[in-house]
Amino acid sequence: MRLFNKVAIVGTGLIGGSIALAIKKKGLAKEVIGVSRHKKTLLIARRTHAIDKGSQDINIIKDADLVVLATPVDTILNLAPKVGRLIRRDCIVTDVGSTKREIVSRLTRIFPFYVGAHPMAGSQNRGMLHADPGIFKNSLCILTPVRNTDKKAQGKVRKLWLSLGAEVICLSPDEHDKILSFVSHLQHIAAFSLMEVVPRQYLQFAAGGFRDTTRIAASESEIWSDIFLSNRKNIIKSIEVLQLGLNKIKSAINKKDKKLLDKILKRAKLRRDSLDL
Amino acid sequence: MRLFNKVAIVGTGLIGGSIALAIKKKGLAKEVIGVSRHKKTLLIARRTHAIDKGSQDINIIKDADLVVLATPVDTILNLAPKVGRLIRRDCIVTDVGSTKREIVSRLTRIFPFYVGAHPMAGSQNRGMLHADPGIFKNSLCILTPVRNTDKKAQGKVRKLWLSLGAEVICLSPDEHDKILSFVSHLQHIAAFSLMEVVPRQYLQFAAGGFRDTTRIAASESEIWSDIFLSNRKNIIKSIEVLQLGLNKIKSAINKKDKKLLDKILKRAKLRRDSLDL
Repeated sequence: MRLFNKVAIVGTGLIGGSIALAIKKKGLAKEVIGVSRHKKTLLIARRTHAIDKGSQDINIIKDADLVVLATPVDTILNLAPKVGRLIRRDCIVTDVGSTKREIVSRLTRIFPFYVGAHPMAGSQNRGMLHADPGIFKNSLCILTPVRNTDKKAQGKVRKLWLSLGAEVICLSPDEHDKILSFVSHLQHIAAFSLMEVVPRQYLQFAAGGFRDTTRIAASESEIWSDIFLSNRKNIIKSIEVLQLGLNKIKSAINKKDKKLLDKILKRAKLRRDSLDL
Repeated sequence: MRLFNKVAIVGTGLIGGSIALAIKKKGLAKEVIGVSRHKKTLLIARRTHAIDKGSQDINIIKDADLVVLATPVDTILNLAPKVGRLIRRDCIVTDVGSTKREIVSRLTRIFPFYVGAHPMAGSQNRGMLHADPGIFKNSLCILTPVRNTDKKAQGKVRKLWLSLGAEVICLSPDEHDKILSFVSHLQHIAAFSLMEVVPRQYLQFAAGGFRDTTRIAASESEIWSDIFLSNRKNIIKSIEVLQLGLNKIKSAINKKDKKLLDKILKRAKLRRDSLDL
């Protein structure tokens, strides 16, 4: 089912590359073009048939009817004005940024047909080489429409994500950022912090629990410093809530209060058990 | 290669059951007997040929030449005096407790041929039903001999773990507990805390990062409250170090200090990348 004529993916990394592969695979567009800073990335994207054409020059996107901004948060914000000057007036623009308040507020003012999106898929890996058209299957894609989001554009972006296999739900940008600070950004903060504080000479004793708890600390640090700064207020609040949680457990251990400690751990375990992940 | 005549596994749960299965599979003992509080566990252990004989009555262990205490930390401490009154004078005793200072100090006084051990294998799952003779392959088993540990007994316990596929290294009980507080106990504290503080209604938005970071929060809460209390001082110190780490990241985010934030995250990422896990 063709949804678009020419889709331009700006940033053919893990997510952008996976979207390109999936669009091609499912025939959702007549043509997919890619923009990357790196020649090598474009070469891989062409060789894997993720894109029909690629360029380091963003001018290539000018007659697309869908532009997907799939760069790190900061680059999305920096590129938007230029993209706005290049594209057709009726072009639909979406992005895959992990924070939404700042991006949606700015991009809504630039693009008449902008729909914010955050596909919750991916891994600690990065780059076109890890791209996989199947990563969106059974994932969640959050759309963040606002009052003046064009309904028709929203419908088409929604259809795109459904076609890629994702479940689609809508949240306001503020809700999105608050929720994500608790279910994603905070876990990254915890993983990075754990890696930061464990003495190096002890790392040889790390086993399976350590491996999984810190997996996402291998994520690209620059992508995540952007996300943390872009969602600053929510993240600081969520870190503080985690610190209170740590204090609660620390205090129960300090007081040798086995009953309270059992209660806290049991509740955490039951919550984790109830997760369908 | 037969190492023992009659091995008694006290506590045929995930670890005890896996040891029993592996000993039988590799023919390391003529006979393996099991003790559990639960009839059903013993039934499963017999049906899966983990043990030759099982009983809820600990008297069954009396003529073993190796006793493996594989219960939670607290139960190891509580059972030890009774086991000491039951067994043959020359019986080798070992345990699989996750903390060692308290256990080694007490058990060394009770058993003339005691060797402390901590196999770093297992998962959040619990019980004989999840037992698997292969879980020790390529794992690390830490032995914690002290000054008056019998060298011959230590050699036999070491051989046992090598035969089960583990790499064996020796640490003092104090070193063990300090290191483990940083590479295992702290990760459990972090995972339990993350589950505790994330608002319930947000859990539906959890994805892969959340899943892995909190996997070990599904561990049995009573086992872990025992471990935390038994390694109280080290764990409190490690929590405080984590809190300092969180403060450092929080402060960089608060000050919008992208350079510092990048530096912290990059260092954490490189450390994680260097792990061979």
